[in-house]
Amino acid sequence: MKSQTFRMTMLYDFYGELLTERQKEFYDLYYNEDLSLSEIAENYGVSRQGVRDVIIRAEAVMNDVEEKTGIVKRFMGLQAKIGAIEDAARQLRELNYRRYENPELGRLADTIEKNIAALKE
Amino acid sequence: MKSQTFRMTMLYDFYGELLTERQKEFYDLYYNEDLSLSEIAENYGVSRQGVRDVIIRAEAVMNDVEEKTGIVKRFMGLQAKIGAIEDAARQLRELNYRRYENPELGRLADTIEKNIAALKE
Repeated sequence: MKSQTFRMTMLYDFYGELLTERQKEFYDLYYNEDLSLSEIAENYGVSRQGVRDVIIRAEAVMNDVEEKTGIVKRFMGLQAKIGAIEDAARQLRELNYRRYENPELGRLADTIEKNIAALKE
Repeated sequence: MKSQTFRMTMLYDFYGELLTERQKEFYDLYYNEDLSLSEIAENYGVSRQGVRDVIIRAEAVMNDVEEKTGIVKRFMGLQAKIGAIEDAARQLRELNYRRYENPELGRLADTIEKNIAALKE
């Protein structure tokens, strides 16, 4: 399961609130806190297999929603475009610095960079 | 129900695939094709109340997911930031046009505008 940690973290970020409290707890401990199945099992006084079942069920719930809606995929597709805008804003700042020193151009680069940073939150 | 058309269209755009085929059909006809409950009822040979129940159930499914995840709200929050970047790119283009006529600046404005347009798709 852990080979998919990045994807699972994204799914949890978007769909975590669709899970039950117990699913959220185990999922969070396993993927975000990096505890092992055995450690979680010991802390909660349940079997390792029981922990595993809960996490697999949580993944299935989120994978099912993602398969239908494609929302996480859509968000990840935005990242490349956001990166391209960020590059352009940096080039604008550099061009202004080495050639124009125009405060208005500097402010435009600031505005773009500030709003791009907010998009990435 | 129709007073909420914009919100319902957004919910459908994100979560429509979580609905059953029948829910999708009725929802689409009502909100996107603007048929009345009675028209849908007549076309499908069911009662007006039956159509209404299906649509209300579809709304409940999508509202429930949105209440938990807040994904549509998050997406709508991005729109203001995208608008601010779009404004900055337009100002950059105008400033370049009336003062610098630098093709590099023009290309940066193009890049930003092209990627912003893609973000809005």
